Amino acid sequence: MPSTTRERIVDAADQLIYEHGFEHTSFAQIADSVGISRGNFYHHFRTKNDILDAVIERRLDRTRDMLGAWKADNDTPLGRIRAFVHILIDNRALIERYGCPVGTLCAELGKLAHPARGRANELFVLFQRWLRRQFTELGCGDEAGPLAMHVLARSQGVSTLASTFQDEAFVRREVDDLENWLLQFSANNPVH
Amino acid sequence: MPSTTRERIVDAADQLIYEHGFEHTSFAQIADSVGISRGNFYHHFRTKNDILDAVIERRLDRTRDMLGAWKADNDTPLGRIRAFVHILIDNRALIERYGCPVGTLCAELGKLAHPARGRANELFVLFQRWLRRQFTELGCGDEAGPLAMHVLARSQGVSTLASTFQDEAFVRREVDDLENWLLQFSANNPVH
Repeated sequence: MPSTTRERIVDAADQLIYEHGFEHTSFAQIADSVGISRGNFYHHFRTKNDILDAVIERRLDRTRDMLGAWKADNDTPLGRIRAFVHILIDNRALIERYGCPVGTLCAELGKLAHPARGRANELFVLFQRWLRRQFTELGCGDEAGPLAMHVLARSQGVSTLASTFQDEAFVRREVDDLENWLLQFSANNPVH
Repeated sequence: MPSTTRERIVDAADQLIYEHGFEHTSFAQIADSVGISRGNFYHHFRTKNDILDAVIERRLDRTRDMLGAWKADNDTPLGRIRAFVHILIDNRALIERYGCPVGTLCAELGKLAHPARGRANELFVLFQRWLRRQFTELGCGDEAGPLAMHVLARSQGVSTLASTFQDEAFVRREVDDLENWLLQFSANNPVH
């Protein structure tokens, strides 16, 4: 099924915002990227904030899909957490260029005190709740929440430094370190 | 000694760039913040990039001063690394609002493919080399470099999530966790 013009606009805006930031991305760049006239563009979106809202909703949908796929593809909670950690390897080329799409968007909207900030933060909340659920299934009880935040923080830190130092050995070392850290939970849990 | 007009411009620009991002900060906002005319402003800086360069040099100078003070104030390398980790507590109000000044600037300039990007990254390099030196003094040998990057990454991750979740308990928990992790080096080293 060919995508609609609206979908193509949101796709292009999503990519430009990731690569160059929200503030730096203009209507004109998005329209050029899609290859449509300004008139056609304004038919779909009146303001840059309207596009941002659509981009965030699209990212929320895609994140839910990704988390669902990780769940379906991995039988154990430990395997699912490992799938999360492995984004750092799988997406390393993009992360080295542009950082984490979630972390950098939330940081920018925070500084702009942008009204869409809270909705963008929901992207982090999706990951955090999903990770918490995996740690709960691993039998971590009340520690599941703090452990989810710990894994999320470590992956964010790796993303930030990956885009500054562009040092692949560093990323692989930190991922190995996180995987070794995760093994302690498998030892405590006979299911794995 | 009263500061010069140039210094006052760089001070104001530094703060505005931290609070709102480089792209969002305008000449007019900086001039308004300092309370000078556009003419006086242009006498000191011709372009926004010139101001950015001055802001980065100022941050590099201040970082060197801070690292020197941490060295002078702490007799042991472990105490110095702890001083670094404690910025997360000492500056938590600002970090919760605006994130880490180094991480967010480097992330933004990276996305802009800005010519000052390399110079801004030197801010991270200063911290990384200083931390490496402390781990070397702790007797960590070839591991000193990776350990420095590990501490830097963890502090960056905490900053990013602190500004999203604004959860002080999370920040304190992660700092405690890092301090406990650091204790393994004190056990291996009879000096501390």
